[in-house]
Amino acid sequence: MTFVPTQSGRKADPQLALRTAFAPNSLAIAGVSPRTTGWGGGQMFLRGIRKLDRVPNVYCLNPRGGELADGTPLYQSLADVPGPVESLISAVPASAILGLVDDAIAKRVKVMHLFTAGFGETGSSERADLETEVLRKLDEAGIRLIGPNCMGIHSTRGGVSWMDESDSMPGHVGMLSQSGMNASEVVGEGVRRGITFSNVASFGNASDLNEADFLEFLSHDNDTNLVLAYLEGIRNGRRFLQVAREMSQRRKPLIVLKGGLTEAGSRAASSHTGSLAGSAQIWNAVQKQGGFIPAQSIEELLDLAVTIERMPDVSGPRCAVLGGGGGVSVLAADICDRNDIPVPWFGEATQKVLREFTPVAGTSIRNPLDAGFMFEGDHMETALKAVSDDPSIDWLMVHTGTDGGTRARDEDFAEETANSLATVAEKLSKPLAVVVRQPRTNDGFGRGLDLQRRLNDHGIACYHSIESCARAVRRYLDWQNR
Amino acid sequence: MTFVPTQSGRKADPQLALRTAFAPNSLAIAGVSPRTTGWGGGQMFLRGIRKLDRVPNVYCLNPRGGELADGTPLYQSLADVPGPVESLISAVPASAILGLVDDAIAKRVKVMHLFTAGFGETGSSERADLETEVLRKLDEAGIRLIGPNCMGIHSTRGGVSWMDESDSMPGHVGMLSQSGMNASEVVGEGVRRGITFSNVASFGNASDLNEADFLEFLSHDNDTNLVLAYLEGIRNGRRFLQVAREMSQRRKPLIVLKGGLTEAGSRAASSHTGSLAGSAQIWNAVQKQGGFIPAQSIEELLDLAVTIERMPDVSGPRCAVLGGGGGVSVLAADICDRNDIPVPWFGEATQKVLREFTPVAGTSIRNPLDAGFMFEGDHMETALKAVSDDPSIDWLMVHTGTDGGTRARDEDFAEETANSLATVAEKLSKPLAVVVRQPRTNDGFGRGLDLQRRLNDHGIACYHSIESCARAVRRYLDWQNR
Repeated sequence: MTFVPTQSGRKADPQLALRTAFAPNSLAIAGVSPRTTGWGGGQMFLRGIRKLDRVPNVYCLNPRGGELADGTPLYQSLADVPGPVESLISAVPASAILGLVDDAIAKRVKVMHLFTAGFGETGSSERADLETEVLRKLDEAGIRLIGPNCMGIHSTRGGVSWMDESDSMPGHVGMLSQSGMNASEVVGEGVRRGITFSNVASFGNASDLNEADFLEFLSHDNDTNLVLAYLEGIRNGRRFLQVAREMSQRRKPLIVLKGGLTEAGSRAASSHTGSLAGSAQIWNAVQKQGGFIPAQSIEELLDLAVTIERMPDVSGPRCAVLGGGGGVSVLAADICDRNDIPVPWFGEATQKVLREFTPVAGTSIRNPLDAGFMFEGDHMETALKAVSDDPSIDWLMVHTGTDGGTRARDEDFAEETANSLATVAEKLSKPLAVVVRQPRTNDGFGRGLDLQRRLNDHGIACYHSIESCARAVRRYLDWQNR
Repeated sequence: MTFVPTQSGRKADPQLALRTAFAPNSLAIAGVSPRTTGWGGGQMFLRGIRKLDRVPNVYCLNPRGGELADGTPLYQSLADVPGPVESLISAVPASAILGLVDDAIAKRVKVMHLFTAGFGETGSSERADLETEVLRKLDEAGIRLIGPNCMGIHSTRGGVSWMDESDSMPGHVGMLSQSGMNASEVVGEGVRRGITFSNVASFGNASDLNEADFLEFLSHDNDTNLVLAYLEGIRNGRRFLQVAREMSQRRKPLIVLKGGLTEAGSRAASSHTGSLAGSAQIWNAVQKQGGFIPAQSIEELLDLAVTIERMPDVSGPRCAVLGGGGGVSVLAADICDRNDIPVPWFGEATQKVLREFTPVAGTSIRNPLDAGFMFEGDHMETALKAVSDDPSIDWLMVHTGTDGGTRARDEDFAEETANSLATVAEKLSKPLAVVVRQPRTNDGFGRGLDLQRRLNDHGIACYHSIESCARAVRRYLDWQNR
């Protein structure tokens, strides 16, 4: 077979290539070891893809041939694969990459993902030249490239994944990430937070397909309602901004965590993905123009996703804070105030209802409400409904620990608390957020996970601290009012 | 017996009263129910005191008399107690308090602690009058008062406690807290962080003995090397400042978390402990004059305690950050920079050693070091020693997760990692901090607790996030250089 470039002199359509990469009909993995143990290499992708079981034709390559324990053949080269191969994942060492690229061109693959690392990001000029050469060859042949030095694609509906352990329930949150570990962290922790994903891309060095291409894909992806991004460098700032602005106009939210904003971080980004990360000043300008929501940590990225998915209708910042503990209530008020979340006085009608729960006549009913009583009997419904109907309140925050207290130790604590909150939440006129404070014991952690999972199942927004809850709601409102 | 005030017209010595309260020879608890289940009331104190088993004579009171399940007599009144009573804990309702006060005066107790709540903090003028009346009577009789509306004393060596569950290993950290729940949280979480306590006081409304008295006690307490404080209001600002300044001169560290700094928080403090919390501006001035270390959360209070106990000799801010993950490294650098912790270039000699671990020739060795390799074989020792000897570095931060990765899943992960780090730490010329990042799975949480406990046992400073580690070291250095 002789080599004929598909679109001589012009790059192939990036969106067409991405549609293939996210949902290929046929896919080959180069560099699959017959050993099934251990992390990394082609086995990792094979496990992820097999778990999802949605790609019609999957082939494994190994220069030594042979087969896997289950009888799956290991083709010695791409030319030996009996059918067409649309998408190719490379887990071979960098030293073997040029040969694989030639094979890919001959096989007319449409898109190639290089898990393979050891290129420009090493700082070696020889390795940077190799990266350039790979790119030149693929370019000429009209093959688009994801990476190198990245985990590639996780598509819950398309069936491609590097994650064999995450819950792969198809959802509606998309992500683009320059770091595979950060993407894995967001997906893994996201599942615990009740966030399920549509299409996720980790794109590493971004020597060909870059952040703007992935953002454009996700912005038009009908399975994606909300996009998260972890970026180190920006390859195509003008196009990225254009897509971001267009998303902002369509009110499709984009949340961006930018790494490498400081001098030390920028240096680290350069050795991680070879990115020129740029300064905080430039980024602030970009942010303003792009109309997206900035996040400062992975936790905040997920807090914002929870807010947008679970309480999109919150109409203002004024918050009623309810939960047990006098000292906690004082600190909660300080935290809200510092995050520009007002904790106003309750109206007279609300105070009248709440006063019924306090043992001492004449007690002032204040917000935050030190409301340990709330978790007993049907007090919760009465208290939350009264507060929710208060015109001075826009949303409710209920906080609880899971470690100590006789109540938290009850076997059915998580189930009962989640059910009561879910029953009441349906009857409230305002959005409800629940903070499950961080536990310190094994039992508390287990109960916390259980409570959180149940609240997620009921569609209730759940956070890990009063601070992260207040901050996320504030950022979301700022974005709404932009 | 007729009533003769001990020091007519003059208040009894507060420090004498506190020495009795923290380590009484005889103690009575009023309001002990014969039922042993449930939280609260006299049973809580009885359990705490019995667990420590250090107070020679402990008596229980209940107006209905009878006895506990184990045969302990319940005296109907203080007058019936066969021996002297130095210290009296009241867990009776506010409605019964005046009778108990009269009995205490007749029995010539030295110090009385009112767990009893429902006084000025309710906002009711009637209840505030009752508090004034209690105080007047005790004053006249020369009896000093702790509270009302508080948990009182936790003294690991004196044998008084309201905590029946905390690890009560005697240590050298003291605490004063206006909130009992916050004090319990600090002690409970402190134990997990490897912090053990000397004397802790929760003092609620502080109508008699106040923050300045407790601070003075702890400042001169030889068992206490470091004092933590949670404050809402300040009753005696001049005296508090005087003691704080004097501690600062003796370089006995004081860390203060101030609740109620914002308008909403101040309102909450008023209903919690009846405190006038004051403004942030005033507090900033106080802080400057007092020479103490400010904290903004309970976690930060403990992060600072860990820093002071485990790495007191850190001589500057310049940090080497080491751990697995490129994206994590980029964000770590940003976090350090934002907390004014420089992450400088490594010297040439250091780079040369570290380069041996990287698979690709010519790779730049940057700080933070994406150092997953470190946890294999004896790489850790070589890497950490090289970095520690680098003159551009003041301290080392090693970070690890405990959820995923083949390595973290090994059964002996916690033991091996802790042992390797401990062995290496002894050979380093600079202080080492370890960040065990927050887990998301039950297994990861268990392994994290285990690793943390082992590191604590080895005396290694351990934190829950890169952010909290960087911030604590920065605050400690600022205090050192004040």
